[in-house]
Formats: sequence, structure tokens, C-alpha cells
Amino acid sequence: MSAPPPRITAVDTYDIRFPTSRELDGSDAMNPDPDYSAAYVVLRTDAADGLEGHGFVFTIGRGNDVQVAAINALRPHLVGRPVDQLCTDPASLNRDLIGDSQLRWLGPEKGVMHMAIGAVVNAVWDLSAKREGKPLWKLLADADPQWLVSQVDFRYIADVLSPERALELLSKGKQGAAEREKTLLERGYPGYTTSPGWLGYSDEKLTRLAKQAVADGFTQIKLKVGADLEDDIRRLRAARAAVGPGIRVAIDANQRWNVDEAIAWTNALGECDPYWIEEPTSPDDILGHAAIREGVAPVKVATGEHVQNRIVFKQLLQAGAIDVLQIDAARVGGVNENLAILLLAAHFGVPVCPHAGGVGLCELVQHLSMFDFVALSGTTENRVIEFVDHLHEHFLTPVVISRGHYTAPTTPGFSAQMFPESIAEFSYPDGTFWVADLTDLTAQKAETA
Amino acid sequence: MSAPPPRITAVDTYDIRFPTSRELDGSDAMNPDPDYSAAYVVLRTDAADGLEGHGFVFTIGRGNDVQVAAINALRPHLVGRPVDQLCTDPASLNRDLIGDSQLRWLGPEKGVMHMAIGAVVNAVWDLSAKREGKPLWKLLADADPQWLVSQVDFRYIADVLSPERALELLSKGKQGAAEREKTLLERGYPGYTTSPGWLGYSDEKLTRLAKQAVADGFTQIKLKVGADLEDDIRRLRAARAAVGPGIRVAIDANQRWNVDEAIAWTNALGECDPYWIEEPTSPDDILGHAAIREGVAPVKVATGEHVQNRIVFKQLLQAGAIDVLQIDAARVGGVNENLAILLLAAHFGVPVCPHAGGVGLCELVQHLSMFDFVALSGTTENRVIEFVDHLHEHFLTPVVISRGHYTAPTTPGFSAQMFPESIAEFSYPDGTFWVADLTDLTAQKAETA
Repeated sequence: MSAPPPRITAVDTYDIRFPTSRELDGSDAMNPDPDYSAAYVVLRTDAADGLEGHGFVFTIGRGNDVQVAAINALRPHLVGRPVDQLCTDPASLNRDLIGDSQLRWLGPEKGVMHMAIGAVVNAVWDLSAKREGKPLWKLLADADPQWLVSQVDFRYIADVLSPERALELLSKGKQGAAEREKTLLERGYPGYTTSPGWLGYSDEKLTRLAKQAVADGFTQIKLKVGADLEDDIRRLRAARAAVGPGIRVAIDANQRWNVDEAIAWTNALGECDPYWIEEPTSPDDILGHAAIREGVAPVKVATGEHVQNRIVFKQLLQAGAIDVLQIDAARVGGVNENLAILLLAAHFGVPVCPHAGGVGLCELVQHLSMFDFVALSGTTENRVIEFVDHLHEHFLTPVVISRGHYTAPTTPGFSAQMFPESIAEFSYPDGTFWVADLTDLTAQKAETA
Repeated sequence: MSAPPPRITAVDTYDIRFPTSRELDGSDAMNPDPDYSAAYVVLRTDAADGLEGHGFVFTIGRGNDVQVAAINALRPHLVGRPVDQLCTDPASLNRDLIGDSQLRWLGPEKGVMHMAIGAVVNAVWDLSAKREGKPLWKLLADADPQWLVSQVDFRYIADVLSPERALELLSKGKQGAAEREKTLLERGYPGYTTSPGWLGYSDEKLTRLAKQAVADGFTQIKLKVGADLEDDIRRLRAARAAVGPGIRVAIDANQRWNVDEAIAWTNALGECDPYWIEEPTSPDDILGHAAIREGVAPVKVATGEHVQNRIVFKQLLQAGAIDVLQIDAARVGGVNENLAILLLAAHFGVPVCPHAGGVGLCELVQHLSMFDFVALSGTTENRVIEFVDHLHEHFLTPVVISRGHYTAPTTPGFSAQMFPESIAEFSYPDGTFWVADLTDLTAQKAETA
């Protein structure tokens, strides 16, 4: 008697938090003190080889427990499900999760519940790529265009992108794919770095890190702006002086402004030739972005890391509201929805420059851009993946940056897996780091008393 | 020594679920089997009179626990806060909750986390109105326009609605307010009923309930559509035949369609003269609604119960995408954000016809429409509040419908308070109803085995 086909046996979740707020790493005009965190999920199976799928939502601290609760709410859809069905048709799970009408009420397709779906769907793609023995980018790039189309949910976007058009784009993407894969493996995918530009850094640190970025081979850096205009002018001048005229300097307001303010402030920074203004206002304001784009040209408008789903991306493109589309691997409903978004971008000819940083976002999103290069848009022109040099040490297969480029991963999977030791140390509030931290705090309080 | 000023001492939350799916009450094209539920919150105080504030998020079953977890995440912002400050300036809390940058990452201002904020903010308004000894609608109608303006967050809407324009609208709303209050107290506020039109009902039941609605004094009913076109045509004919030509029959697709489909399907139902098509597609699709409105005129387009915040409402109005704006009392960030939305609607001259039904949504939202009539838009023309006759018996001060009108509440507060007995019976999974239900299920399984 042969063994029964493997199934999902457990969905384990972890509330992992890193105390990043103590260093002002990641500080910006809206997020002064983030504690970079992950609501982390492991799909366990009874496959003989111990196959597991890993995924997560990135958060910045408080509320990570709510995000974990949302992932837990998906457990009944997963446990007992055959691994083979999940791996050969992740869309079947995606449909069931998006289509759970009771859970759908909590969105629909946005916020905490949708990000939980994204984490689980991404974990399934990790499982699938591991089983296939390929890094995710290659699994996607090798896939049959028809099958990729079957992985996309066209609901609410079909008025702009039909399955037929998607197939056409993906079939065209196959032409020259082998050549581009070779190029990718040789050169990697261009990145840019935000490391110099956090608001909490001194001008001296900014200048030093900006110079370092150029020395490291990056051709674009990014600065956080939006807290104080005089400071921004000074910091942007310092950055421009540090990198010279040939390097792109993007700026990022993290949604700080109203529409009129965004236009005035961005134009006030014009002398230093910013390349794009990122998140000038609410990610929900499609018409606002269109007005801003008109008001700040030739500075480009970029957004996406907080855009909730394909429906809002569709409209940003329809309205001509953005020059640069910034996907995030862990905000929308996972790889399936990001396929839809990459197809929309390709359809409109708008370059995709992913948001990354946080916890593990670089690790994930590189796969999507690399697939896009090899088998969809077919180009890296005006395309860069954000890079921030934080917290990679907690991942089994961290990103490798070389001469300003992301090196293509070759390990099977979605690069989502953290070391068990990291999980044990930074689980909140019971991990060894947080327990020791609480002990310190208690001791300090006792001393002060 | 006088007693210290009262503070919030505890934030108690309850996962309350009613087994409504067993009767197909509330069934529609997207939600075949809702279990109407409330993530319910009570703000306890140490005020001498035992003052409490009650609020909730309405959900339809699974995931209600996630919603409760989100409310719990707000507890640190509430416990210890002075009641006086909360009551005289609910916006101060609203700002702190919306502005918690770590929690904001989970939205921003949308989905589970935002609805949790709405529940808590609404509970504060309940507290405030009780302390003032007024029903909420009257507290708002009596309020100084300057103060009301101070309760609105203009971030991301200031490009369309300035504080000055809001003040102008509210000051104009004061003219004749006393007269309108008298009218309101005499006649109530017009309602319409969805009770006949649930998808799960037979044609016979539909016809009977539609006739009953007219006999009860309603001048508008609503039917769920979107599952099957032939069925919809038959049901709409039956409804039209039952009510005659003088009664408005609205239809509601609960987001079932893509844009093109919405236009074609609505036009196919044109022979029965539907008054509005509600939720024809995704609530996120502003440009889609604009296209649908153009494609189905003269049938009106209505949406809002799932619109996540004031920013999306702003754009629906800017884009001329809707004829009817449907606020929901428990989807956005509470009374403060609904004030912003009512002001936007008044600014654009678009009538507000609230979504209600569910658990306690009628109880809450009547206050907002009544305030709007008395002291903002100043009219009930083409304005009706949805009414569904479900679950009102669990509330201390349930809505009173008379000749198709909502009777203005006179009890102090926001009408949000449920009976302790109802909470005890329907708390999930430990309430007496659910424990007994589980016992039955176990017994049935044992019999079958």
C-alpha cells in the first residue's frame, strides 16, 4: 500500500518583533518609531521530505498580534488540504480565501484580513517552489503562460485587462526569456538603497551613507522627507552634494501630505532634482495622485507599498496617476494578486520598482521583479528594487547584493524562511530577547523607585 | 477632598454571534450564509453614576474574533483616559488612534483596524451623549458648528472640502433647525425596507413581504440581485406587481459584478424600473462606478456600506460616480469620520441613504441621518434609511418604526447598548446558545456514528 498523498497538517503562527525603534532605523515622517515585525506562518505537511511553506506579513510593531489572529482565522481553509492541489493550483486556495464570504466582510480584499491571505498564499508558493526545486522567480519564468493566466483573479479588473490580453503579454514575454535569464544570472537585478535617508539620521551620517551607496555601485538612493521643509532642503542638498549629478535621488513622504501640500512641497525641493516623489499622499487617493502628478512634473510620482489591492492599482494606472508602480510582496493577496498587478503594469507600460526593506521584503519581492524581467516586461530599464540593509541575517537565504544589484537566488523556494533561532529569540512577548528586555525594564523601574 | 475626575477603567470586549444563516435572513449574491455578529465593546468608567460607553463592529460571522482582537489592541489608548476630555473632544481620541503609526501600518484607515477604531470612537460618542443626557442626533444638532468642525479630520480631503467650507455648511444648517427638529419628532425620518428581498426567499414570500411593506407605510423596498439574471427578472417583476408603480424598488448586487457586467445586467432589469442599483461592483472601484453610472442612467448608482473611509467617498463624489451615498455607522472610523462624509455629501449635494440592518446598524445610523436633516442638509428629500426587522430585540432602545418612518430616539446615548442577557446567550463560543448548540451537534454526530 502506497502512502497517502501529503496534506497540510498544521498552520503554525508566530508574532516576531525586532526592537528597531531604538536605533531610529526605518524612521520617516509618518513612522517615527517602528519596531519591524513579522506575523509569520509555517504550513507544515506530512510529506516524507518534511516539506514546509513559509510566509509572513510585515508590520511595524503594535498590532502584529491582530495580524497573527487574522492568519489563524484562515487555518480551517488549510489544514487537511492536499499539498499537490495547492502546489499545482495555488489559485484554488486564493479563490477560497478571497471568497470566504464571512471573512470577506472584514475587507473586502484590504487591510488586516487581506494581508493575512497574502501571507498564506505566499507560503503556498514557497511550498510549491521548494517542491519544484526552483527559486520562485524561475518557477514563474518557466511556467506556461496559460497556467499563469489561470493563477490570476480578473474580477474587478476585467474592464481593463482581459485574460486574452494577459495571455498575449505573457506569450510575448517568453520571447528571448532564455537570454534574459542568462543576463539575470550574470548581472543580477538593479537595486537602489534607502539606507542613507532615514529621517532620524544626522546630516553627517546621511552624507557618509550616501557616498557609501555610490561606492557600493548603487545608481539611485532615497531620502525620507515631509516632516520639515527647511530640513528637507538641507538634507537633499547634502545628499545631492554627496552623490553628484549622475545619481538618482528619490524622495519619500510616506503619505504625509494633502494634495496641494504635496505639490507645493515637492516643487520647493525641485532645485536638487529629485527623481520621484513617493507616497506623496494617501494611497487611497487615486484622483489626488493624478493631480499631484500633473502638479510636480517632471518629478515622477511613485506609490504602491500601501496600495491595498489590484483594484486600486488598476485605477492608478487608468487615471494616469503614477509614473512608477511600487509593488509590495506582503501587502496584497500574495503572488497571485501580484501577478495581476505586474500584468496591469505591463499592459500600461509603467515600470515596476518594488517596495522592500522591513523584515524579509527584499527576500520576497526580488523573485517577482526577476520573473517580470525574464518573462513579462522583458526589461530592467528604469526599474530598481528597493534595498535596505536590515535584518537579513535572520533569513536562511538572505538577499545577496553585488555592485548595486540583487543576485538572483538559486535556492528553491520564495526565500521566506527565517532561522528557528531568530523566531525563538524575537517572538513577542515570550522570546528570549523580550523576556530579558522586560527583566531589564523591571530592574530599571525598581532602581528608579 | 473631592473625588478625582472619572476615567476609563476598563475596555471589555465580546464576540457576539447570532445563528442567522439558518434562516437565510440576510442572504445575497455575495453572502449566502451570514451569521450576523458584533465585535462589541464596553468602555467602563469610575464615574459615580456608572456611566458606560457602548459600541461595536458589525460582521457576518467568521473573523469576528479577529475584529475583537483589533479592538483589544486599542486598549492602551483608552484605559486611564479622563472621561471629561473624551466627551468634550472625541476627536482627541480619534487623532491618537488614527495616528498610532504602528497600528496605522495595518490599514491605513481601512479594514479590520479601522473598523475597530470606529467601534471605540462610537462608544465614546455614546458615553458623551449619555453624559449630556441627549440622544446622539440631538447632541450633534445642538452643537456649535465651530466645535463640529473641530471634530472632523480634514487630512486627505482638504483639497475638496476645507474647514471654512464645512463651517459654512454647518452654519447654514442651523437656520430653521428648531423647526426641523419639531418635524422630526412629529413625523420621524423616512425608511425603506430590504426585508422582502433576500435572495434566499421564495417568490411567494417576496410578494407577501413586499405587499406588507407597502401596507406598513414604506415607499421604497429593495431586492437583492446578481446571482441569476432570469431569477432576477422574475423576482423583480413579482415585486413590481406586488407594490404597483408608485413605490420605488431598489436593487442591490452586493459587489457581484465587473463593470461591463454591471451595466449589461442592470439594463436588462430596466423594464421593471429599478430606482437604484446598489454595490454594482467593488467598493474600491471609483472609476468603475463612474463608468457604470454613465452606462445605466436613469437608474441611479448607490454605494457606501463597504467604502472604507472618507478618502474613497471624496473621490466617488469628485468623479461623479454615485447618485446616492450610503454611509454605514460601523465601517469607517466612527462618528468623527461620518461627520466628514456627511459634510462631503452636503458639499456635493448628493443625498445620503444609510446602509443598515445587520446587528444594531439601524439603531446607530438613524442618529446620523437625523442630525443631517436637522442641522446639515436640512432635508429628507430623496433620503431614506434602510430598515431590516432583525435582532432589534437585543437592544435596550431598539428602533421604533411607524408608518414607514424611524421615530426619533429620545433616550440619551447612541442606542448602541445590548442587553446583558443577549450578550451572555450569544457570546461565541462560550455563550449559552452556542454551548447548547455544540452539545446538540455532538449528540447528532453520536447518533449518526
